[in-house]
Amino acid sequence: MKLYDVARSGNCHKVRMLLAQLSLPHEIVAVDLPGGETKLPAFLKLNPRGQVPVLEDAGEIIWDSQAILVYLARKQSDETWLPTAPLTMARAMQWLAVSENEILYGLARARAALHFKAPWSVADSQALGTQALILLETHLTQREWLAASHPTIADIACYPYVALAPRAGLSLDAYPAIVAWIRRIQAWPNYTGMPGMF
Amino acid sequence: MKLYDVARSGNCHKVRMLLAQLSLPHEIVAVDLPGGETKLPAFLKLNPRGQVPVLEDAGEIIWDSQAILVYLARKQSDETWLPTAPLTMARAMQWLAVSENEILYGLARARAALHFKAPWSVADSQALGTQALILLETHLTQREWLAASHPTIADIACYPYVALAPRAGLSLDAYPAIVAWIRRIQAWPNYTGMPGMF
Repeated sequence: MKLYDVARSGNCHKVRMLLAQLSLPHEIVAVDLPGGETKLPAFLKLNPRGQVPVLEDAGEIIWDSQAILVYLARKQSDETWLPTAPLTMARAMQWLAVSENEILYGLARARAALHFKAPWSVADSQALGTQALILLETHLTQREWLAASHPTIADIACYPYVALAPRAGLSLDAYPAIVAWIRRIQAWPNYTGMPGMF
Repeated sequence: MKLYDVARSGNCHKVRMLLAQLSLPHEIVAVDLPGGETKLPAFLKLNPRGQVPVLEDAGEIIWDSQAILVYLARKQSDETWLPTAPLTMARAMQWLAVSENEILYGLARARAALHFKAPWSVADSQALGTQALILLETHLTQREWLAASHPTIADIACYPYVALAPRAGLSLDAYPAIVAWIRRIQAWPNYTGMPGMF
């Protein structure tokens, strides 16, 4: 299994986290994002969107962090990381959707605008990111994990850019339930963080 | 089953389409979006994001169109609309992700900015929407359906805002494979369209 990866990417970190939790042997292929490698023809053949992460497994190519999380979780013989019962799977999907919307277009974009010269509006992105934090805080006040009584890919999908919120210019001081959830994740065996995480 | 619905919403239309394909009896609850109903406390109790669609089934509330599609597909005894084999499910998720990213933040936002006084940049949204169209056109040139050899929720998730591309100020004339896919969907039994669709 090969992961086309950029170290500073929170979307790649989601996949790295699940690979670690599942103890799946894999090779990391470092992609030169600042050098423009994701827009070169060879990379666009892997992923026409020109984005990391991309997973290669048994000759199959899967792009998109959400799709890769689902793929890896479904490959396991048990349903721990992605239960398939209709309601529990829907609960996981709700938070995958939040990770692709308020978190990605809010928290991730604000960080990219502040630190990686991305062209997004910091204020607009922070406003959307704050909506994500309020939503998560309210939800996590009543439960330990986002979609089930145990961790699922929903927690992994939401985690990196939330833990990186300070790098998006947003303090987590007002969100004690989020902070407690972050600490629970950071206590997982095989947990590895990223620079700048809370 | 109750669907909290806004007639002009493409995200609601996804759910209406799958309910029709599954022949599931349901009640439509019309939500007054222009009147601000989605931001009122009663609605926010259903969906803290303040958005339609919301599904109520057997006392459970599910928000987010992607989560609702997964819920309804998983409720069926067969796997037609959402296969659970790892690779096929990952393929479906790739296109759900596109529907939440390039399509929603591109095509849907351009339409909302042009016709519903939404504050997004028309040019930026159209640029992202064009990426979605190019991605879909390339993919559909080689196959009939997005994620499998038959229609899945991936097709439904991508369909409404793509068929509404002309309302986003983007012509579909240069995308024959997309047009053919739209026509295949429109030939489904129980198909119903929306005003402004190609």
